[in-house]
Amino acid sequence: MRLPEYHLTLPAWMADVAADEVVIPDVVERMRFVVGLAARNVAEGTGGPFGAAVFVRDTGRLVAPGVNRVVSTRCSIAHAEIVAIAMAGQVLGSFDLGAGGEMELVSSVEPCAMCLGAIPWSGVASLVCGARDEDARAVGFDEGDKPRDWIADLVDRDIEVHLDVLREEAARVLYDYALAGGIIYNGRVHHRHA
Amino acid sequence: MRLPEYHLTLPAWMADVAADEVVIPDVVERMRFVVGLAARNVAEGTGGPFGAAVFVRDTGRLVAPGVNRVVSTRCSIAHAEIVAIAMAGQVLGSFDLGAGGEMELVSSVEPCAMCLGAIPWSGVASLVCGARDEDARAVGFDEGDKPRDWIADLVDRDIEVHLDVLREEAARVLYDYALAGGIIYNGRVHHRHA
Repeated sequence: MRLPEYHLTLPAWMADVAADEVVIPDVVERMRFVVGLAARNVAEGTGGPFGAAVFVRDTGRLVAPGVNRVVSTRCSIAHAEIVAIAMAGQVLGSFDLGAGGEMELVSSVEPCAMCLGAIPWSGVASLVCGARDEDARAVGFDEGDKPRDWIADLVDRDIEVHLDVLREEAARVLYDYALAGGIIYNGRVHHRHA
Repeated sequence: MRLPEYHLTLPAWMADVAADEVVIPDVVERMRFVVGLAARNVAEGTGGPFGAAVFVRDTGRLVAPGVNRVVSTRCSIAHAEIVAIAMAGQVLGSFDLGAGGEMELVSSVEPCAMCLGAIPWSGVASLVCGARDEDARAVGFDEGDKPRDWIADLVDRDIEVHLDVLREEAARVLYDYALAGGIIYNGRVHHRHA
């Protein structure tokens, strides 16, 4: 067996967006940047309507951006938040993003169950969300089975959570995607054997 | 900004283990294979004491193996199950592993919150676990905040769940790792700002 490898890349257009050092002190403007990534990912045909990024929390320096790369890299794990966390680890040279200072994960939509579970392992100190879970579900995306008190769970781990930052703008990217007939792919439904 | 990339690889020793086509019809023997991956990952110094693999459920043909690659690839996401799912997508050429038939994810330890959330997105039809969540917690690994009824949640999605397959052997890999002074890395504990 030749050993498989998985190469996770960002779309080429990301080089335009993050050509020079990006510093965004204001949290609302960080979200506007991330919602822009989600919209451009759809417009360029490089993935689903989800964007995320890791910033240095206090200065707003962009560490790494992420967009949904599930279909384009043939990997169900490649959600925007996972991509941003994986890329930030490469930029900082550590699996523990907190080793590089207090980091903030900004996501255009509240994380699904998988991405939520990834957040404590990533070392980020803060999570900022745009659209709500129910905005994603409203257009047909499955967000998975999360603990009922997921926000309290993160806060108990000393991770800040900020919701509804530019929620309408973030949700509009989802609605526009659905209206344009974008593929809503979810987990496969299995049929039980007799 | 030069765009970061993330290259997820398997350790070189995996070529010995999976040199030829691997077919393991019996589920207990599939688990023995996976527990062996976990033990060897520790022995070779290539990662934490966790192994996983995706098999074709009905025939037992190995599609892709995985081991913990968090420290070695500087990525908090690279848990054994995530690695196996990502590699299986590359082997099968699709983010939806179910497109290649009914697949089974065998994991040496019950999945953490992140890996649990990844399972419905992966398209696998079956999950087989060795050690229990509490075996991992007993040696200091954080498994995250899972929904209380996570097994029922998977079953509701028509994903089979089999627990305690070679539990003792699988747990022994965790105990041996801890006794040998292996690093128990978890999510960073943040200290709240005043």
